[in-house]
Order: sequence, then C-alpha cells, then structure tokens
Amino acid sequence: MFYALDILGTIAFAISGVLVAISKRMDLFGILIIASVTAVGGGTLRDVLIGETPVSWMLNLNYIYVILVTTFLTILFKSKIDYLRKSLFLFDTIGIGLYTVVGVEKGINAGLDPIICIALGTMSACFGGVIRDILCNEIPVIFRKEIYATACIIGGLTYFLIKKLPVDDNIVFIISGLVVIVVRLLAVRFRISLPSVYK
Amino acid sequence: MFYALDILGTIAFAISGVLVAISKRMDLFGILIIASVTAVGGGTLRDVLIGETPVSWMLNLNYIYVILVTTFLTILFKSKIDYLRKSLFLFDTIGIGLYTVVGVEKGINAGLDPIICIALGTMSACFGGVIRDILCNEIPVIFRKEIYATACIIGGLTYFLIKKLPVDDNIVFIISGLVVIVVRLLAVRFRISLPSVYK
Amino acid sequence: MFYALDILGTIAFAISGVLVAISKRMDLFGILIIASVTAVGGGTLRDVLIGETPVSWMLNLNYIYVILVTTFLTILFKSKIDYLRKSLFLFDTIGIGLYTVVGVEKGINAGLDPIICIALGTMSACFGGVIRDILCNEIPVIFRKEIYATACIIGGLTYFLIKKLPVDDNIVFIISGLVVIVVRLLAVRFRISLPSVYK
Repeated sequence: MFYALDILGTIAFAISGVLVAISKRMDLFGILIIASVTAVGGGTLRDVLIGETPVSWMLNLNYIYVILVTTFLTILFKSKIDYLRKSLFLFDTIGIGLYTVVGVEKGINAGLDPIICIALGTMSACFGGVIRDILCNEIPVIFRKEIYATACIIGGLTYFLIKKLPVDDNIVFIISGLVVIVVRLLAVRFRISLPSVYK
Repeated sequence: MFYALDILGTIAFAISGVLVAISKRMDLFGILIIASVTAVGGGTLRDVLIGETPVSWMLNLNYIYVILVTTFLTILFKSKIDYLRKSLFLFDTIGIGLYTVVGVEKGINAGLDPIICIALGTMSACFGGVIRDILCNEIPVIFRKEIYATACIIGGLTYFLIKKLPVDDNIVFIISGLVVIVVRLLAVRFRISLPSVYK
Repeated sequence: MFYALDILGTIAFAISGVLVAISKRMDLFGILIIASVTAVGGGTLRDVLIGETPVSWMLNLNYIYVILVTTFLTILFKSKIDYLRKSLFLFDTIGIGLYTVVGVEKGINAGLDPIICIALGTMSACFGGVIRDILCNEIPVIFRKEIYATACIIGGLTYFLIKKLPVDDNIVFIISGLVVIVVRLLAVRFRISLPSVYK
C-alpha cells in the first residue's frame, strides 16, 4: 500500500518538473531530465550522502517507467493539466509525507543520529525541487516561500517521539507521514508561513 | 587506441569549458575549474551515483595533466581558436561517442539494468556540459537545443542490440561509439532536432 | 586546539552564508540551508568524491549545532554584524587554512596522489562558497575575483614540501595552514590577484 502511494508522489513530482521545464521552453530531453530530477533528485542526494550506492532508482526501475509515462502523458495533455491542480496538490503532499518518512528510516538503518535522520527525510522530500530550480536557473522556491520543509521537519520529529511508545512500526510510519501531510494542508489552507526575519 | 581517442574528447571538452568561462570573464582559477568540470564532470557524477569512488580522475592523473595543458594553451591561443572550430567539433563528437560507451560499460560492470547503463552513458557524455552551464549561471544548453543526448541514447541502444550478436566486445565498443558519432554528425548536418512539444 | 579553530572557521562560513541568504530575501529555512551549505558543502563534496560516507557532518553533530546557533544569532544581531567585519574576515581566513590542511590529509589517508590531495584541500576550503553562490543563482564569486583558491593551493604545496623534512606531523599541519592564512592576508592587504587573461 505504501508502495502505491510512493508512486503517486513520484507522479506528482514528475508532473511538477514537466510543467516547470515547459515554462522554460525546454526540449523533450530537457523536460525528461527535469521531470526525473524533481521526482528522484532528493532521494538520490540522500543516498549519495549516506553512501548507499548505486542509488535507489538504479536498482528499482519502476521509478524510471513511472517518470517516462508521466512525462509523455503530461506533455500530451498539458492543456488539460489545470483541471487536475487540486489532485496534483494532494498527490504532491502525499509524496512529501512518504518521502520524508522513507528518508528518516534510511537514516535510522544507516545508524545515524535522529537529527541527521530528520535532515535526510527533509532532504528526500524537498531537494528534488531544489535541484529542479537550479537546473532551471531559479533561486529554489522552497528557500523563499516555504510551506514544505517545516512540515517535513515536524513529521520527522513526530516519528522519533512516537517511536518511543509501544506501537507497531507501521503505525509510526503512517502517523508521522500523516503529520507531514496534515501540517502542509493546514499551512496552505490558513496561509501559515515561517516567521519573517525581515521587517 | 581507444585511450588516445578518449584524450581527444577530454581536450575538446576542456576547450569548450575554457571558452565559456572566458565569455563570462572568469579569472584563471575559474577558467581552470570550468575546464575541468566540463571534461570530467559527467564521469564524476556517474561514478558517484554508482558508488565507484574515489572517482576516476583521482586515480588516473592523465586527465588532470591534459586539462591543465589544454587550459593554458587555449588561453594563450584563444584568438586563434576559431580556426579550429571544425576540428574541435569533430573532437567533441568523438569524445561523446567514447564517453557514452565507457559509461555504458561501467554500468554493466556494476551489474545494472541496460536502461540504467544507457542513462549512465548519456550522463557521462552530457553532464559535464550541464554542470559547466550551471556554474556559469545558464540554463544548460543541452536542455534547449539538443543534438547531443539523443545520439548517446541511440548509441547506447545499439550497444545492447549488437552485444547479443556473436561478435567481439571490441567490435561492440567501436560500432556503438561510431553510431553516436554518425547520428550526431548527421543531426548537425541536416539540422535535425527533437520533435517540438510546443506549437 | 585545532578543533576549536575549526569551529571558528565553521562559524565564519555560516555567517557569510546567512548574510548572502538574507540579501536574497530568503526565509528562515532557506537561510539555514545556505548557512549549512557554506559551512560544510566543500567538505561534503570532498567526502562524496573520495567515497568517505556517510559524510562527516552526519557523524559529528557539532557542526550542526554550531551552524544552528550561529544562524539564529546572526539573524538576531544582523544589524550589528558590520562591526565584526574584521574579526569575521580573520575567522574566515583561519577557516580556509584549516579546511585546506584537513582536506589534504583526508586525501593522503585515502592513498591519493599529492596533486589530488591539494585539489581536495582547495575543494574543502572553497566549494562551500561555490555551492552557496549556485543556490543563490550567482556565478560563484571565487571564479571571478580570486584571493582564496590560490592561497589554498600554495598551502597544499607547502604541506608536501615540508612533509619531506624530518619534522613532526603537527608542525607540518600548522605551517601549511599558516601559509594559507598568510598568503590570503597578504593578497588582500596588497590587492594581489591572479594575472588577468584579458587585455
């Protein structure tokens, strides 16, 4: 079940990559690369930094297939993608929830400190978009109007808090993933952002 | 023999880096870094992603020496480099042919799926230029007017197609490298590009 | 003692990251990421390229704590940071001296050639700033007006020259670190830069 949800996240991330690449008038190859980087870039950076290589999309081809199909369908139906905006936002939010918890657990498996695990979870969920923006010659959107990373950090903290309770590992996974999703949905709904450091 | 050709590719890539860096008015250090990144960046990314570290230019110093000499000669004779445009284009094309096949074979040695191997070959040949463009604050040229990556992908496909035939490994190497070179030369000669996704 | 100095460098690098991020009007999360990348990005790239993973800041949390505290204090007192400009410049210079020698020694421990070790030292000291500038959508400042990298290269050369003499390893460390620091201070004091390649 988690797996199918992971695919939803990959689809949402790939679509967001395609849309940004098209707005930059890239060609087919550029669009495909930007879609891939948005979908798997965060996890790739995480894997490289902890030394888990070859990185995961090289070992599980499903990501590649999903990205290829998503890219072509998005290009084909790009004039209709606007109707999907709400579903996409939901997929994207589910995606960051799952990516965060998967990243946290990869850190735990590598024997790293909880703080580092939370950083890895946030990186998994957010840095695909960062690399996308750099390749598109933009300051990463997440560094300016953030409703993403804080949700991941809170979800990561939740993971370690409830892991101490006598509950099943799957429950820990689901609850902390849901926390990311709910925090993000609430933040967008009520236009909550980080306290400004500017006057 | 392959080795000498590999050096031709490194020279062509380094020269292209120097020219871009000069057009950005970088200083000597910047020019050297951009030349190096263009020449070995794609292979470095490939090595990091599959976990083959220390990356190859750290173990074989010939790349460093070639890049150093090329950089200084290019700066010295930069007003004359225009006369070499045709040779450079040929070197560059030979370079991507070789880099592609070397990348594909590295993937095979790491036990990866053919699709991933082709991606690694393309990455080896193309991502030095991508990193160069990012460091120079440009949207990578290869994402906009592509005559590069498709040639690499076709060459990679060829590799796996003829590998099934009862032919020598060297023949497989040579033919698929030549396919990259011929496809690129034809694409440039007849101004073939990817089908546009824009109307 | 070296350790305490290392922290000074981390503080100076983090502060420089915060100031650049603020000048780009980033939010709290963006500022924190830019501060971190400036402080540990060079060493992270070095560790990834030589395959020493998980990278060092994942194993020694002191870097994270120092960066967190530095970031919040810098934001809080940013109107006063100008008074510290001279101390900051000194901290920063001490930082590159130390980072350079640490990088060189990591290369030696990985059994790499002296040329590569010097490149790794320079990378450790300089590439945090390069990644910072890329994330902020600028051409890296170090590629244009350089007083940084040459000092690191000279310090690295010194390391290998005096290592051949019958002196203690700590002396080698201190002297080559000091060479980086002195060369940089002199370069700034007397406005020495690399010979221009432009007319």
